[in-house]
Amino acid sequence: MRYIAFIVAYDGTDFCGSQRQSNGPSVQGELERALSVVLKHPAPVVLAGRTDSGVHATGQCGRFETENQIPAERVPLALNQVLDRAVRVLSAREVDGSFHPRFSAQSRRYRYLIDNAPIANPLLRQMAGHVRDALDVAAMQEATGAFIGQHDFAAWQSAGSPTSSTVRTVKKLEVRCRDDILGSSLVEVEIEADAFLYQMVRNIVGALLEVGQGKLKSENIQRLMAGRDRTKCPPPAPPQGLCLVEVKY
Amino acid sequence: MRYIAFIVAYDGTDFCGSQRQSNGPSVQGELERALSVVLKHPAPVVLAGRTDSGVHATGQCGRFETENQIPAERVPLALNQVLDRAVRVLSAREVDGSFHPRFSAQSRRYRYLIDNAPIANPLLRQMAGHVRDALDVAAMQEATGAFIGQHDFAAWQSAGSPTSSTVRTVKKLEVRCRDDILGSSLVEVEIEADAFLYQMVRNIVGALLEVGQGKLKSENIQRLMAGRDRTKCPPPAPPQGLCLVEVKY
Repeated sequence: MRYIAFIVAYDGTDFCGSQRQSNGPSVQGELERALSVVLKHPAPVVLAGRTDSGVHATGQCGRFETENQIPAERVPLALNQVLDRAVRVLSAREVDGSFHPRFSAQSRRYRYLIDNAPIANPLLRQMAGHVRDALDVAAMQEATGAFIGQHDFAAWQSAGSPTSSTVRTVKKLEVRCRDDILGSSLVEVEIEADAFLYQMVRNIVGALLEVGQGKLKSENIQRLMAGRDRTKCPPPAPPQGLCLVEVKY
Repeated sequence: MRYIAFIVAYDGTDFCGSQRQSNGPSVQGELERALSVVLKHPAPVVLAGRTDSGVHATGQCGRFETENQIPAERVPLALNQVLDRAVRVLSAREVDGSFHPRFSAQSRRYRYLIDNAPIANPLLRQMAGHVRDALDVAAMQEATGAFIGQHDFAAWQSAGSPTSSTVRTVKKLEVRCRDDILGSSLVEVEIEADAFLYQMVRNIVGALLEVGQGKLKSENIQRLMAGRDRTKCPPPAPPQGLCLVEVKY
């Protein structure tokens, strides 16, 4: 049996999420459809990170198994000829059977884009959250400190995906203004952690947005963290601003 | 009668173009639908520049007439509550009846975005043209000189929209690499002219792309210009990379 790992980018707008589900097309389902055409056999796909409906990826990692002798370097082109244009396989290589996209990952890196303008740019509506009032980016930057390092992130986990431990290590959390590239003023949040709880990135960004809007004081974040109570925390930022950028092994 | 001029941004992906047409929804039609709801009477819209299906705008200018006493500064919010999210009115002000979005315009500025990577970024597929091979941006920059200034641009006009004169003045034409903001290497072409012939921007960008790919020599552009024969010129760049950024008065 051969094991092929690949990097995949997708526009999550029209998918019900990365994982196969009964309520609509998924990224996994689309990849498996294309693989069955290319490989001439069904090939279940394992992905590194679960992304919700509307969430994008430029560096998601996946793996499948096959007896087909297609060279790994031909896999991207072969799949891209079959895949919907919302999904593109960027690279592929053969790995040994011990490699698992999810369990072998050392860290995940996400980016969250905010269209920070009085009126939302329609060109960004499917890839950025929108905040009308000018964000206090310096306050948001100051607030990042409370999240960095090893913490119990129970307060930043949405219900629906219980895990044995809610302790995670945030290795990087940065907020910056980005160059106007599509006629908008953009604020970007970049976050890297060993792993993320369910909707943890969107919940953290939701808190940073309230700090940036003056609704939440930076010093209250530690209290929210210690309280471990999601219902006391700001709502999650909307999904369309989120993008899985990289999975590190 | 009151005359209200407004600036409008739109994602042209799902429109058949800016002008009302029988074959699908148009930006003009969507604006007129929203205006009839807000003003309680039909109000024809005049737009500064015609954009094709798939072409976007961040600074299109429009105008309508009304007897309704709605303050001009309320128009954006009122329309945006009714409009499809692919269209946003950014600002509005009262003008006198002599102002015409198209005939009063002194110049138009467009931007063309190119996703220049071996595999297209799915997040950019509706707002950038894609060129697989690395573009020679320096050669493209050198080639811009042939287009700048007053010329007979007949060679760069697509059939279907005859005009009395094909002489236009290109005031600015710049090619630059842009910061990676969505995980891609972007090349941007910015062009400003007093007015443009039908598909002139896409035809000029199409020629620049062939220069960047080594298929057309920069020094041959003047010959193509003098030949006034569209059929001898490179094909137009695809519509989705194009965006009307500003109309100057």
